[in-house]
Amino acid sequence: MNITIAIDCMGGDHGPVVTVPATLAFLRTHPDAHAILVGREEVLSPLLADAPEGLKARMRIQNASQVVGMDELPAIATKSKKDSSMRVALNLVKTGEAQAAVSAGNTGALVAISHFVLKMLPGIDRPAICFALPTVRGHTYALDLGANYDCTAQHLLQFGIMGVMLASALDHTERPTVGLLNVGHEEIKGNGLTKAAAALFRTSNLNYYGFVEGDDIYKGTTDVVVCDGFVGNVALKTTEGLAKMLEVFLTEEFKRGPLSMLMGLVAMPVLKRFKHRAKPSRYNGAVLLGLRGVVLKSHGSADAYAFEQALARAADAVGNNLIQRITDKMAAMMSENGKTNA
Amino acid sequence: MNITIAIDCMGGDHGPVVTVPATLAFLRTHPDAHAILVGREEVLSPLLADAPEGLKARMRIQNASQVVGMDELPAIATKSKKDSSMRVALNLVKTGEAQAAVSAGNTGALVAISHFVLKMLPGIDRPAICFALPTVRGHTYALDLGANYDCTAQHLLQFGIMGVMLASALDHTERPTVGLLNVGHEEIKGNGLTKAAAALFRTSNLNYYGFVEGDDIYKGTTDVVVCDGFVGNVALKTTEGLAKMLEVFLTEEFKRGPLSMLMGLVAMPVLKRFKHRAKPSRYNGAVLLGLRGVVLKSHGSADAYAFEQALARAADAVGNNLIQRITDKMAAMMSENGKTNA
Repeated sequence: MNITIAIDCMGGDHGPVVTVPATLAFLRTHPDAHAILVGREEVLSPLLADAPEGLKARMRIQNASQVVGMDELPAIATKSKKDSSMRVALNLVKTGEAQAAVSAGNTGALVAISHFVLKMLPGIDRPAICFALPTVRGHTYALDLGANYDCTAQHLLQFGIMGVMLASALDHTERPTVGLLNVGHEEIKGNGLTKAAAALFRTSNLNYYGFVEGDDIYKGTTDVVVCDGFVGNVALKTTEGLAKMLEVFLTEEFKRGPLSMLMGLVAMPVLKRFKHRAKPSRYNGAVLLGLRGVVLKSHGSADAYAFEQALARAADAVGNNLIQRITDKMAAMMSENGKTNA
Repeated sequence: MNITIAIDCMGGDHGPVVTVPATLAFLRTHPDAHAILVGREEVLSPLLADAPEGLKARMRIQNASQVVGMDELPAIATKSKKDSSMRVALNLVKTGEAQAAVSAGNTGALVAISHFVLKMLPGIDRPAICFALPTVRGHTYALDLGANYDCTAQHLLQFGIMGVMLASALDHTERPTVGLLNVGHEEIKGNGLTKAAAALFRTSNLNYYGFVEGDDIYKGTTDVVVCDGFVGNVALKTTEGLAKMLEVFLTEEFKRGPLSMLMGLVAMPVLKRFKHRAKPSRYNGAVLLGLRGVVLKSHGSADAYAFEQALARAADAVGNNLIQRITDKMAAMMSENGKTNA
């Protein structure tokens, strides 16, 4: 299967110095994939000069004169930057020249411009950001992690359907389990939103597990965890903060005097393996779900390795017909008058 | 200063086998403190038989025939268990026989019964759970971590005032900084609740820092972090889950073959120091703020060391006049017609 990915090469904290090498590495491991590198041609061209001819044959540059700033307001970026690398990449998905777009740029702008350019799938009100978080068992798809800060119960149900379809597309799980993130497992616990959403999930035909708590995410209790974007974003960033603090503590303890440093040197191979296993860049690439096209958001600070993971995830989503699966599911649900089957 | 603490000895996952040894250890390090051990006399008495006379002179048992179950509904526990160890301990604070109550029991029940027995301080609508979380720099007081799941902006402002008074009472910080937990630092970011609360914080005279994100908690960006109890509870439990997962990863990597195990043995002293530094039990003891008395909630699974930390924190709050400070602050704020000074 031929897969073409449009890459916003200018986005992110590092821009082309990260996105171009990542694209080359991605093309090497994906012999059927093609890439359209979107950005300022005069910047991108020299970076490709030394690329092997075999790879060059599977990529081209699409010029885009503007760049969306990392702190730019989404509404302004949507209105005023019609030739931004982000927008041009999304346009390529809209016209069908590419099947997926990947960007490490401003999240809010990517959500807004994707929504504007690609439009929503039937039955879905808003895009949601879905991330595969590592767990003790494997990984859990959590959404929404920051696209929507004031959600209704109906939004949460839509997130559940999209998350379940993502898990079944990428992991080939039969009937992925889905949990609603809450402050307790008991039915009586929660706020108004989670209680109302639970009622919708219970009467849906999703494989609904019930309420899950924050620690269930990393336990891998369910395949999918649903929450509103405010809660999801805070939880994700809080764990990022904890992980960084623990890394500081670990480093400091191994630097507390010559003997500790020696111990650290001895244990280095294991500590490196541990860090590799826990490092978030392995899991880079959040899927923007609900759109008429595959859109992947890389972490803004991604290095080439991390950005390559996001490109691979995009190819995987396209190769597994993610959009068609969600569309079919929503159609089935709507024809069943609010009932869903996963 | 004489401080008497009423201890719900029956609460928590382990009950008296943890709470009684913790009380003895606490009395040893706090020569001016007294303890009232609340629970079934026939259970507690034998556990004290071998205690040194010097400690026995500073404690007594208060019989309570009932125990609130860990999964019991708060409303039922409040209505039907008038002789529970939790309730009797709180009654001792109400009558002035004790200045603080400490329990490792059911959180919801402790919030409900404290509210019912002790009542709220003037100007405070609801109790809030406040926890000192470790940071790269020291610690940050975060609240509410689970007493209130549907908050108003006014509630968040009250949490801010209480958190600031706790920080200034326990750490003697001049004008503690307070941040509102949000999904971005920019003023335009957030949900309806955080935007409305920000407007109240800005016009208050608290040392308001502005919005903070999840990772700011562990960075220690502000002395106090305010959020609604749903978000706070999810964030706290999510980090607990991550910490446990990382511990599993670290242990697994050090057990991956004989060489790794040897490296682990060599590095053991440093790893132990790291684990001690990161372990949550050092920070055990959440304060229930807003009540007419000091109430401390220990983690349900606390061991004796952790429960002792909660007792020490209670003594610290009493010794530093926490309740009077909050009362004065609220009175000043109300007389200034909504303006506050910290």
